[in-house]
Formats: sequence, structure tokens, C-alpha cells
Amino acid sequence: MSNSIQGEALIGGRAVIGAGATFKAFDPNLELAIEPEFRAVNAAQVAEACDLAGQAFDSFRATTDEQRADFLEQIAAQIGALGDELIVRAMAESGLPRARLEGERGRTVNQLKLFAELLREGSWQDARIDSALPQRQPPRPDLRLRFIGVGPVAVFGASNFPLAFSVAGGDTAAALAAGCPVVVKAHSAHPGTSELVGRAVVEAVRRCELHPGTFALLSGSGHGIGETLVKHPAIQAVGFTGSRSGGLALMAAAASRPQPIPVYAEMSSINPVVLLPGALAARGAEIAAGFATSLTMGVGQFCTNPGLLLGLAGKEFDAFASAAAEALKPLPAATMLTAGIAQAYQRGEDTLASQDAVTSLVRGESAGCKGAPSLFTVSGDAFLANTHALSAEIFGPASLLVACRDLDQLLQIIEGLEGQLTATLQLQEDSESDLAAARRLLPALERKVGRILANGFPTGVEVSTAMVHGGPFPATSDGRSSSVGTAAIQRFLRPVSYQNLPRALLPEVLREPNERGVWRRRDGTLTRN
Amino acid sequence: MSNSIQGEALIGGRAVIGAGATFKAFDPNLELAIEPEFRAVNAAQVAEACDLAGQAFDSFRATTDEQRADFLEQIAAQIGALGDELIVRAMAESGLPRARLEGERGRTVNQLKLFAELLREGSWQDARIDSALPQRQPPRPDLRLRFIGVGPVAVFGASNFPLAFSVAGGDTAAALAAGCPVVVKAHSAHPGTSELVGRAVVEAVRRCELHPGTFALLSGSGHGIGETLVKHPAIQAVGFTGSRSGGLALMAAAASRPQPIPVYAEMSSINPVVLLPGALAARGAEIAAGFATSLTMGVGQFCTNPGLLLGLAGKEFDAFASAAAEALKPLPAATMLTAGIAQAYQRGEDTLASQDAVTSLVRGESAGCKGAPSLFTVSGDAFLANTHALSAEIFGPASLLVACRDLDQLLQIIEGLEGQLTATLQLQEDSESDLAAARRLLPALERKVGRILANGFPTGVEVSTAMVHGGPFPATSDGRSSSVGTAAIQRFLRPVSYQNLPRALLPEVLREPNERGVWRRRDGTLTRN
Repeated sequence: MSNSIQGEALIGGRAVIGAGATFKAFDPNLELAIEPEFRAVNAAQVAEACDLAGQAFDSFRATTDEQRADFLEQIAAQIGALGDELIVRAMAESGLPRARLEGERGRTVNQLKLFAELLREGSWQDARIDSALPQRQPPRPDLRLRFIGVGPVAVFGASNFPLAFSVAGGDTAAALAAGCPVVVKAHSAHPGTSELVGRAVVEAVRRCELHPGTFALLSGSGHGIGETLVKHPAIQAVGFTGSRSGGLALMAAAASRPQPIPVYAEMSSINPVVLLPGALAARGAEIAAGFATSLTMGVGQFCTNPGLLLGLAGKEFDAFASAAAEALKPLPAATMLTAGIAQAYQRGEDTLASQDAVTSLVRGESAGCKGAPSLFTVSGDAFLANTHALSAEIFGPASLLVACRDLDQLLQIIEGLEGQLTATLQLQEDSESDLAAARRLLPALERKVGRILANGFPTGVEVSTAMVHGGPFPATSDGRSSSVGTAAIQRFLRPVSYQNLPRALLPEVLREPNERGVWRRRDGTLTRN
Repeated sequence: MSNSIQGEALIGGRAVIGAGATFKAFDPNLELAIEPEFRAVNAAQVAEACDLAGQAFDSFRATTDEQRADFLEQIAAQIGALGDELIVRAMAESGLPRARLEGERGRTVNQLKLFAELLREGSWQDARIDSALPQRQPPRPDLRLRFIGVGPVAVFGASNFPLAFSVAGGDTAAALAAGCPVVVKAHSAHPGTSELVGRAVVEAVRRCELHPGTFALLSGSGHGIGETLVKHPAIQAVGFTGSRSGGLALMAAAASRPQPIPVYAEMSSINPVVLLPGALAARGAEIAAGFATSLTMGVGQFCTNPGLLLGLAGKEFDAFASAAAEALKPLPAATMLTAGIAQAYQRGEDTLASQDAVTSLVRGESAGCKGAPSLFTVSGDAFLANTHALSAEIFGPASLLVACRDLDQLLQIIEGLEGQLTATLQLQEDSESDLAAARRLLPALERKVGRILANGFPTGVEVSTAMVHGGPFPATSDGRSSSVGTAAIQRFLRPVSYQNLPRALLPEVLREPNERGVWRRRDGTLTRN
């Protein structure tokens, strides 16, 4: 199979021409459509991909951890083998610069390798053994538990990470690691990038001699394909990163199925940053500079963009506001991912600027496909009077600085926020009053967010064991898991218990002896024996 | 506070008279209403209980594992202190015999103690630490993850386990262990039993000096209170065991909230038992006797009741059918939990008996509040032609025996079933053909059910570490967890990650040194150091 862009979908290990409408990618820098022409799949093609994924499930999940680890590494190798063509195409389709996309490719590859490591370590299955107690009345049976994959997973590529949250991104890596076949709906903003990566995955499937239904890539624009995909009976879970309206539509589709399924939709977050007085006094200018960098990185197109700053009104707060404004003002407008995202950003800026009591500290010249940084300010009283409008996410480099009357009011504002991916505390570790304030805020922050940072900025999401990228609704539709890091595998797992099953029928991880030395919980105690 | 039945609800640590309609419990053996009169709570009282639970959450989850373990043990002690009054009242309200209820009380108390043990062991928080790598480019921050409770949990008492799946049952124990306040909606069939246990929990709250909002008991009948409870913004998860229509209504209410929340509704399961030829040949009569005992235990009122038997048509199958019928025929009708359940059972029997191609092998005389065992049989062909009607759960001692043409057809029938709590394989360990058949069926069973048994019967659910009581929809609305055993704590948890948080602000389980020696995952590796 070719590994170049043909405008095709990938179903059952083969490239197929979509039977639906045609469309092209768009270069937001050049403001021009890009060849070649793509064709959306139709409902029958979606069904074919899902049926094949259902057929592939049992054989795919029966592979060993080692085999799936090899497969993930093979995907990483095949992505590497795409070379510069991938980067050049992603640059054209996303408007993102080379360095950013090269970094994102590295992250994508590392993510796959991290899941390979997790599989080799083996404890992801959470194996548990309760020994039989035949003398007890009533006798206790032999009980053994492991987690298995939930079934085929539908993954929706995100516009803002054409590699790391897309075809072979976090959800795909986690689902494949869990033994779940994956059907990806490519984001229509980067179909060529998606096809290249999809072909790399298909090549890895082929080389690892897996069932060709293990992976499919569907092309298309509009919502119809997504709903058809989510409603297909073979699909057992959904991963999505995108708009709130898109996520809510998928949740509704999943809930209306005869058999409802979990949806992990990452939708909206404004990532509050709390500026405690000690920190502002000690290093307000430094924090302002860091904030400006974080806000404008990637033209603010991160789920973890710092969209809300909360501080206590006063001299130091005013100095911070001036410093942040000074840092942002010289920054030019920059190309956003798509024309639609740029327009939504501009509408968001205008809406926020038009609210009563909101003052614009910085308004750059956003126009066309370009977005410029904006900084607004408002009093805590005014924020509380209009929380809904003032806490709506503006996807792009805009932020709102709130001057709270006191810590009580700041806490009240936090309590009134919806769920968030992150919250950040700027504090001085040697300031007892900053620490006391942080202690007061932490319980509320823990209830509201998935990740709490001190003295950093929320952009930059480490791919590791202890990362949580997720949070209470609407940060994600399901705050019980993470979309980044090894914890992401749990979203695609469910437990199965085996009672008195003969050894010959037990899955390997639950058998004696424990040949791989996997961590298991025996009669409640963790052991590798 | 009194520890006797007053017909009251328990809110904020106080007994309160419901402001809604009056109702009484009903003794299904005597077919008589029982004193005293209860009053349902109204919407304002539901809201008060939920608001208080919200207020209690931060202080309750800030208790140490040791404190919550003591609290769970105190609940167990207070239930014990209720003495025989609890058993006598539960017998009157449920029609269940003394021995069964004494056993259930033991199970309830053990469940609380098992969660206390889990808390003392500490690894339920799944603590993870990724060390900072300051030299790496970009530097890796210090990241630490733990799971915390999701927030106040609404628990709906089940009719069939007035103790073990009710006021202080599995969901309550798991939620309290996780640090989640609990608001229980008592089942209207056993309000007195519920009040007694509720008073025991309130007394434990008082003795442990916890926030009085940590626990509330709401009384009432009808669906209005349940919907109000699930829609209250403070409630963050729901545990329910009951009918499919009831569970679906709660799922719809939870999904329609501005902030949707997880619902763990255990709704419907027919628990297929596969009779492999080797097992039938070797010990068909013994299996038939065991089946009859399992089917009729507790008048068949178990979620795990064996409602479907699948075998291969032939001489041994016929012998099994005769033996099972002979074992069931002499068993008398027995009192069911409520008049409504008995009537639904009789309708279910009639509906099944009226289906084309279904033959009645045993029809006892069910009438009034009593249900008698029934056994029906049908061919595999007929089952496949009418799967929907023939696989509906009949709550009570009725089962359907399916004579499959061959193993292919048996597998096809399994593939066509909805999700189940359990599946059972009757097999001979020394029969290669039974083992081969089991190997063929296991992948489908793993996809369909939460627990797979060999050579036993699904009734009897061990409370332990490796138990899964749950399964794909509609066995439960959310098959990613268990409602029994220590795994149940996971349904009420969500992860929070801390990035570069000063030691002074870190939760104890993530601090250095690891004073309690809790298992933690450091840079991917489990360790107690």
C-alpha cells in the first residue's frame, strides 16, 4: 500500500475511496485549499469499519502484552519513517510551525512507547487472586480478577493536535494498549496528516500480522459520520477532544443507544491561575512574563490555556496587570488552526469586551485566519454577577484578569466555576500567608479540577504515569479518567472475575506460576510471586 | 436519639418527620400493613440532605484512612447493637426467613470491615509519583497523582437485600470508604429496617464526630424523590439496584443534568448457565439438583439467579431436564418480597409460557404474594427466532432450558444476549472436548459478563478483592466497575494530579517520607519506600 496522501479512507487494511462528499484541506497561512481532493465515507463504510473492528476484537485482545507492545513500537517506527512529508503536510494543514510539530511528533511517538512499557510491566490488568477457602462455611471459591478492554473504540481527532491527539494520539494508543480495536474519525482540518499517520498504523498492523479490522481511518466533515460511528453497536467507548457542542452531541448519541456507552469528551476549560499576594510581591513581573508566554504559545490553542487569572485587588495586582499587558502588547497576530477557529476566537473576544464592567487591557488586531493576544480585566463583584458569560472558554490567546476583593471572594469565584482541566497557584513557599491561602483553596480546587500546579503554567502536559489530563464536567464528560499518560488505559478497561475456573482456561496473568512476575494482589496483598 | 422505628427520615444527624405523603410497610407473609406510619420526605427535605452532604464533603474526605476505617467499623458495631429487633423487622418487611437475614447481616457487617481493611492498607488511592527531571529539555516537573472521592453519592436501597444492598450496603460502604457523603433513598418495601440501620449509621457519625451531613436517610415511595435526589447539584454519583425501568429513569435524570453524573444501576441479568456434554454425562443429576437449589434460593429473588440454561439437545440433555423438573416439582410456592414483585413474577411466567414453541416442564401454583418454581424449555432455533421475549428477566424462581442444535448455535445464542452479571460453565476438567468448547465460548462470555464461573452456580456473591458484581449494559448501566467487593471503591473515585506542589501542601499519601509504607508507583515502579 502506498504511504502517501491519496485522499482515501483506510478500512480493513485497505485504502478505499469514500462514497460521500468531496472536500479539501485548507492552508490557513496561505488561505488556500490544498490538493488532493478527499472524499468523506458514507454510512455503509462507517458500518464496515465498525463491523471489522468488532470482528478483530477477540483476536486482538488475545495477543500478549509483548505483542501489543511490539505493535505500538511498530506504529512509532512507521510514523518516524514518514519523515519530513508528515511535518510539511501538518504545517500546511494546521498553520503550526515546524518546531512545534516536530515536538508533537516526538510526543506522539513517546506516548506509544510509554504504553509499550506499561504493557511489558503488566500490572495494568490489576490482577487479583482470592484463594479458595474450602474449610470456611460457606466455602470460599477461588476468585481471580483482571481488567480487559471494553471493545472497539471510536476516536475523534482533535483540531489542535494533529498528531498527539489525533490518529495515533493518546486515546488511540491507550485503546490499542488495552486490546481495543480503534476506528478513528479524522479531523477534517488535517485529512492529509491523518491519512499519512493512518497509513503508518495500517502498515504496523500488517507487519505485526494483526487482524485488519484492528484499525480504521474514516474521512469526512460535518457531524453525520460522527453520530453514525458512535451509534454503531460494535463501538463500546468514545474518545473525543473538541468543542463543547460537539462533545455534547456525541454524549447524547451515546446515551440514546439501546446499549449506552462511555464517552470521554474533552470539551472546555479556562484553567484558572490564582495569583497569591506573596508571589506577586516577590516576582510579579516574572509571573507576568511567564503568563504571556503560556497564553500565546501555539496561538493560545491549548485546552490548558490560562484563560482566567484571579488575584487580590491592590497595588501589586495593578503592577502585574500592567506587566502582563506590556508583555502581550508587542506580540503580533498569528495564524490559527482554521478559519472557523479564528472567527470563533474573534467573536469570543468581542463578546467578552462587550460585557458590562469588563475593561480591555490589550486588544490585538485579530482578523482573517489570525488571532492576536487579548487581555481583559474585571472586578470580582462584576465576575460574580455575570459568571456564566465571563467564564465561557475563548479558544485562543485571550485571558481575563479578575481583581477580587479578598480571599473569600476569590474562593467564591472558584466555587462558582465549572469543572476544569487544571488550576494553578502562584505562591511563595516561604510565605506563611500564601501557604495558608493555598490550604484554604485546595479543597475547592481538588473538587473542580484534574491537575493542580504550583508556580508554573498549565500549558505543557507531561506524558507520564502521574499525569491527569481530564477533570470534572465539562472539562471532560467523564472526570474519572485521564486522556494523557498511562492512567489513560483505565478508561478503556472493565473488570472480569473468574470463579473456580480450571487453570487450563485461565488467562495467563491469573495463572500459577506467575511466570512473568507481574504484580498481582493475592488475598488483598500486592506480590510478584 | 432513639434507635427504634419512629417512621422518620434522618437528615443532618437528626430524625425528621417527612413532609410528604404517608405510607406503611407491608408484611407479605401475613398480607397485612405494619405499624408505624411513615411519611415521605418532600423536595425541600431532599435538597436539605443533599446540601448538607455537599457541606460535609471536604471535611469528611479530609479524614485519615484510619478515621474512616474506624467509622466503618463503628457502623458495623452499631448495626450489631440493634440486635434482634433488626432481624424481626426485616423478616416482617421482606418475608425472608431468619437464617437468610442473619446471614445477610453478617455479610453487611463484613463488607464494612473489609473496606476498613482496604483503607488501612492504603493503596486504594493509587498513589503515583513521577520525579522531577530538571536537567531534561524541557524539564520534567514533579508530578504526583492520587484518587479522591467524586463527591456526595445517592444510594437507592434494593428490595431484595434489605441489609446488604441497602442503607449500609455495598454502595454505601464503598462511597463512605472513598470519602463521599451518602444520601440513601430507602426502599419503600422495608422502611423500618432502613430506619433502624440508618439510625445506627447516624449514631456512628455522632460517635466519630463527623460532619452530620455525612449521611442521610430519605423515606418515601414512588419515583419523584429519586429523580429530585439524582438531579440535585451536590450529588456526584448514583448507586442503584432494581428494575430496568427504574434504572433507566435514573440514568435519564442523571444525563439531563446541567452537569451529567455517573450512574451505577444494576438492572437486569438472566445469568446463562452452559451445560457442556461431558459434565452432563458425568454428573447431570447432581447439576440438576444444584441448579434447583440455586434457582429457588430466596424464592429466586437474586440478581444472579440462573434464568437461562443452554445445553446441546440429546439424551443427556433430556435426562437433565427430567431431573431438574423432578427436583423443582415438589418445591412449594413461597412468599416473595412484595405483592408487586409476586405479581410481576406471575406475569413473567405467563408471558414466557404463552410464547410459541415454549414448553412448560414445571409450573407451580404462584398466587397472591407467593411464587412457585417454574421451568420452561425451548429449542435453540425457537430461541434465536424470538430472543428478545425469551431473554427478558423474570425476577423469581423461573428458568428457561434451551436445547441447542450444536455448539455453534449455543455460541450464537450467547452472542445475541445482552450484558449479564454472570455466566456459568458446567464442564468436566478431564474432558478435552468440554475444555475445547469452553475455550470457544470464553471470549464471547468475557465480552458479555462480569463474572465467569465453572462448576458452581451464580447465586452467592463473595465479598472479596477479586469479585466483580457488575457487567455490560443492562446488567449494570456502567460495566466498568463492581458493586461488591473492594473493587467497588473505584466507582466513586477520580484522579487528581499535583504538579510541583510544595511538600507542605501535598496530601499525606504523596509526601516524603512514605511514613505509612503505602504502596506507591514511583517513576512507574511499585514500591513501599
